[in-house]
Amino acid sequence: MSASSVIPSTVNADLQKERDGASFNSEEFAAWWAGGAEQLKFKRGIKEYMYKDVDLAALNQVDYLSHEDMCEFAVKNSINVAKKLRQLQAERNPGGNEYWPTLYDSPELWGLHKVGNPFTVMFVMVIHALKDQCTPEQYEEFGKRVERFEVSVAYAQTELGHGTYLRGLETRADYDRETDEFVLNTPSITAYKWWPGGLGQCSNYSIVMAQLYIDGELKGPHLFYVQVREEDTHEPRPGVHIGEIGKKMGFLAVNNGFLGMKNVRIPRTRMLMRHAKVNRDGTYVKSPADALTYFAMVRTRCIIARNMSLILAVAATIGTRYSAVRRQSPIDPKLPEPQILDHVTQQLKVIPEIAASLAYRNACDYLLELFDATSRDKDQGRYERLPELHSLSCALKVLCSSDAAAGIERLRLACGGHGYLTSANLGNIYVNATAACTYEGENTVLLLQIGRFLMKSWRAAQSGAPLAPTVSYLAEVQRNPEFGVWTGSWENLVKAMQFAAANKTRIAFNNLAKRLVNGQSEEVAANQTGIELTQAAELHGRAFVFHSFLTEVTGAKSKKRSSALNRVLEQLLELYLVNATLNNMNNILRVVALTDADLNKLQSRLETALTKLRPDAVAIVDGFDFADEQLNSTLGSYDGNAYERIFDAAMSAPLNQKSVPKSFHEHLGPFMKSNL
Amino acid sequence: MSASSVIPSTVNADLQKERDGASFNSEEFAAWWAGGAEQLKFKRGIKEYMYKDVDLAALNQVDYLSHEDMCEFAVKNSINVAKKLRQLQAERNPGGNEYWPTLYDSPELWGLHKVGNPFTVMFVMVIHALKDQCTPEQYEEFGKRVERFEVSVAYAQTELGHGTYLRGLETRADYDRETDEFVLNTPSITAYKWWPGGLGQCSNYSIVMAQLYIDGELKGPHLFYVQVREEDTHEPRPGVHIGEIGKKMGFLAVNNGFLGMKNVRIPRTRMLMRHAKVNRDGTYVKSPADALTYFAMVRTRCIIARNMSLILAVAATIGTRYSAVRRQSPIDPKLPEPQILDHVTQQLKVIPEIAASLAYRNACDYLLELFDATSRDKDQGRYERLPELHSLSCALKVLCSSDAAAGIERLRLACGGHGYLTSANLGNIYVNATAACTYEGENTVLLLQIGRFLMKSWRAAQSGAPLAPTVSYLAEVQRNPEFGVWTGSWENLVKAMQFAAANKTRIAFNNLAKRLVNGQSEEVAANQTGIELTQAAELHGRAFVFHSFLTEVTGAKSKKRSSALNRVLEQLLELYLVNATLNNMNNILRVVALTDADLNKLQSRLETALTKLRPDAVAIVDGFDFADEQLNSTLGSYDGNAYERIFDAAMSAPLNQKSVPKSFHEHLGPFMKSNL
Repeated sequence: MSASSVIPSTVNADLQKERDGASFNSEEFAAWWAGGAEQLKFKRGIKEYMYKDVDLAALNQVDYLSHEDMCEFAVKNSINVAKKLRQLQAERNPGGNEYWPTLYDSPELWGLHKVGNPFTVMFVMVIHALKDQCTPEQYEEFGKRVERFEVSVAYAQTELGHGTYLRGLETRADYDRETDEFVLNTPSITAYKWWPGGLGQCSNYSIVMAQLYIDGELKGPHLFYVQVREEDTHEPRPGVHIGEIGKKMGFLAVNNGFLGMKNVRIPRTRMLMRHAKVNRDGTYVKSPADALTYFAMVRTRCIIARNMSLILAVAATIGTRYSAVRRQSPIDPKLPEPQILDHVTQQLKVIPEIAASLAYRNACDYLLELFDATSRDKDQGRYERLPELHSLSCALKVLCSSDAAAGIERLRLACGGHGYLTSANLGNIYVNATAACTYEGENTVLLLQIGRFLMKSWRAAQSGAPLAPTVSYLAEVQRNPEFGVWTGSWENLVKAMQFAAANKTRIAFNNLAKRLVNGQSEEVAANQTGIELTQAAELHGRAFVFHSFLTEVTGAKSKKRSSALNRVLEQLLELYLVNATLNNMNNILRVVALTDADLNKLQSRLETALTKLRPDAVAIVDGFDFADEQLNSTLGSYDGNAYERIFDAAMSAPLNQKSVPKSFHEHLGPFMKSNL
Repeated sequence: MSASSVIPSTVNADLQKERDGASFNSEEFAAWWAGGAEQLKFKRGIKEYMYKDVDLAALNQVDYLSHEDMCEFAVKNSINVAKKLRQLQAERNPGGNEYWPTLYDSPELWGLHKVGNPFTVMFVMVIHALKDQCTPEQYEEFGKRVERFEVSVAYAQTELGHGTYLRGLETRADYDRETDEFVLNTPSITAYKWWPGGLGQCSNYSIVMAQLYIDGELKGPHLFYVQVREEDTHEPRPGVHIGEIGKKMGFLAVNNGFLGMKNVRIPRTRMLMRHAKVNRDGTYVKSPADALTYFAMVRTRCIIARNMSLILAVAATIGTRYSAVRRQSPIDPKLPEPQILDHVTQQLKVIPEIAASLAYRNACDYLLELFDATSRDKDQGRYERLPELHSLSCALKVLCSSDAAAGIERLRLACGGHGYLTSANLGNIYVNATAACTYEGENTVLLLQIGRFLMKSWRAAQSGAPLAPTVSYLAEVQRNPEFGVWTGSWENLVKAMQFAAANKTRIAFNNLAKRLVNGQSEEVAANQTGIELTQAAELHGRAFVFHSFLTEVTGAKSKKRSSALNRVLEQLLELYLVNATLNNMNNILRVVALTDADLNKLQSRLETALTKLRPDAVAIVDGFDFADEQLNSTLGSYDGNAYERIFDAAMSAPLNQKSVPKSFHEHLGPFMKSNL
């Protein structure tokens, strides 16, 4: 059989049957999910343009390359995507920016960056950091060049021996008053900048976080704009030791780099001086507003959280379609093997992840609204909601990344052996998601920060001080510590999760207080209470997701949707709430006196929700409206021809292009012969 | 700085301090863990011989190769390991087999098969299958050639469209009475053999599972010995379509293969006929004992389970040592950044995995004893304990693989960004472990089988029939359904887990019965009860691990250990039981009336156990006695020079061997210039 002939041009009959039997219109779902019919049309237009002449099979050959070839390929490929996107911008709205660079790393284009985009950091982060941290003159000089893509700029903060704790960074920048320069140095191996995306191979400039010293006096970490390679030759600049940190689990071709500096001199004007300043005479002017730096990180976390909810939806699409196509293990031995989606255990692996992607995407939408509102406040000098926004963005970054990673892996395992194939793309999706548990604020570190915010909020509630809206339930629980009647209604489930969060907050608060009374320092006591602080933080995040999902599904917006769509959303809400409640029952049982009958009823609701959603599962993931190029999965394509695609992908593997491998002639053949 | 000079020859001071401060002798631990001082010496002797002249840094360059080169490398490498191991056998005990082939794929040699061993299946499985299924004459002809490594033989069962359900396989073997041959055919794409390790590139023979037809009448799946490539040229035999299935998440270079056959003829005598037979005249003789086939699978599952407990110990060693070496995030801002192992949240990520590897390794030891006993029984025609052994081997295969995978990922995440580096080896370990959740019986399928065994056992207990020892607690719970007093003792925790398992078994049993009464067929009812059946099965497995760990630590064997070692093992038992109890509290609270005070006390015991084990953590993982070559991790080496090793590994990455990458000249440079 030849490689290209096996994929039928028809849709798999089992999949078509699912679509025909759906209880709602997946186009209406798609418009709702996209944020409106106009948005849906816009996104489809982009994808049509950008994927028009992409040969996925050829693109996927990159998986078989050596590390070096893969990295070289990614540079070429990412530049081509940039060119095409700029072309799109020029054609549809010259001078605007809604296509380029806005969409360069958007979910719509994920399918184009199979092994990663070395320039992601430049357009997702560097350009924003320059906007936030440069004086207008500096932005004109540095930022505009990035916008025009005349330079390649990395963001170097993390060091080999130092991560989250900025004050622990070792890289130093000493002001030399004689020459009006900063002298940058990497005093040890652990001070090497390590990890910045695109730094290793591509960058010729980098923003560098370094400890500022003036006359030997430490002023703390500041940002500097450093040229690391020559613009014309790309050779490392004098004193610069730069390269790639080596292979990783994922992000295979983004050339995460290292940077060591030995007496690298830059003009004083290359410190980013929008806020803090060093004058010509060496006098130091402190930043008037520390919160401004941290606000950029909040933005990044909001985007990560939302992307994680979408990447989970991608995996859920693949897992659901494959579960409708694969037939395995009889339920009734007298009948043919059923679609595996008919196995209830399979339903439990797949359908809750669909519901979770909705719940999280929806929570992130609320978060982004809060971000915009807080951003407007901030521009008017009002900072009241900043701590709440910070805490909520951390909570959703943590939950979305860790639950997406776990959910993707569950979905991958639900696809059996074929889920392990690179061509299924689930492994690649997983390693991308799990990385987000670590970067931009390691999840446990963030949970501890949320924990601290909860402690402050609990104390404030005790003293009757007003609380931010998303923690106001803590005050309510303090006022009415008895849960009251368990009804099992959705509102009741939200309340139960809030009570569980409040209870864990109370326990952590009391244990912290006890430890302080027993003479522990605040820091040691906080460390000792770390487990309960992180648990409280996690439950707090879950309570928020519960609440916002309930609001979306049952609130005013439901009036704009058809009753058929609302019915499906309500079933997804039911599944999400019941399943997450059961999964957190150890904490809920401490505050709500559920009987055995109540628990059995919840279990039966879980099974009923799965049964009800089973016939709509395929239509729901169709409503996510991912193009085949975004999924890039032999298991998940719209036509459902999974086996033929797996077969086709295997035939094009390099090893299959010759009938006898070299190693037979050189090693295996002679060895076996010698044993005769 | 040059690449090779950065790694000190001294041990990291933080790590040395840990060793100096340990409360027990890790050599005594090592001897206990290895199964005695003699065993420890034997294992060390093997490792010394086999790793003597291995250049790890050179070996690790394989990570950077193309898929094809990696596969070619693995063939050469695995043959070299075989030669060396045969040499060892010849030197130490000519004619024996305790080195070759017994140790070819043993944990001791894991470090030698970095990207997988294409011949693992041949020596772990094929040779045993041939022993079990061949007549003596057949074994003489096929098996002996494998022993001598004159041929390369795969085991082809799974098909592209068919996995666990053997009766669903499509490959057929029709008996041709005229020529006294079987004619093998692959009737469709979904019938292609898919996944067999080593089949794609290396094999010239394969055991093939196919549906036997005689005169067009189906006799069910049988095994055939099929030549797939010519011995001299390695060209595929006529009618054979063979190759590799393409890249996967892990097992990168074991060339998992596909096989399609078109009228491939083999002599009748190539059906493996030890049990079932086809005579010259086409008469068919059924196998007298079906259980014999399934016994070989039980053996494989026992080995997988035990290997998973060890692979978790490998990851725990890496995570623990790195946590002692890495300093990050102040507890007290006035003090230097602490070892991250001092953060309580980090302790919770790392130390329970140490305890879990012990608990599981220990449970697997008991399982292997049961296997040996049952094996002896079987040889005498006694099959009573077979169902129990089958069920227990499934339970431990499931728990060890899924908990090892989850634990390894927790440990990897606990190492922060550097855990994501290929050179940390945790990613590689993870993809190996997670694969075991799927192969040799997909975990959910196995849980459902255990669930069925529990249903039978529950019914038997109701009728007063005797139960197998490992499920006898079900009868006890039926007799005394009240848990009684919660004391929190270890025995009490074991009992609580047994009650939780029995309770879920009861719920599943009752729901199943209710569904049958309501008119559902047995199969449909079992499917509908699938979630609770799998939950019961999991809890049953946990109860067994609880019980066997308690027995090991507090039982008669403790008399042979020093009190210092016993104290550490008791603390590990305490941590394991308390942590697992808390993690399963949702099920335990349904059967045991714990008060809030009881729960707070358990939480406090968890924290105390972590605090007590913290100073011994490094010495415990030292006691696992993994050589640096087995760990193959920049983060986990015995000397603890993690940063220097990360640095060193990065310097040797291929991209760093030239100062300017090709893509700059060809793509990035011209592109940026064009934007000027």
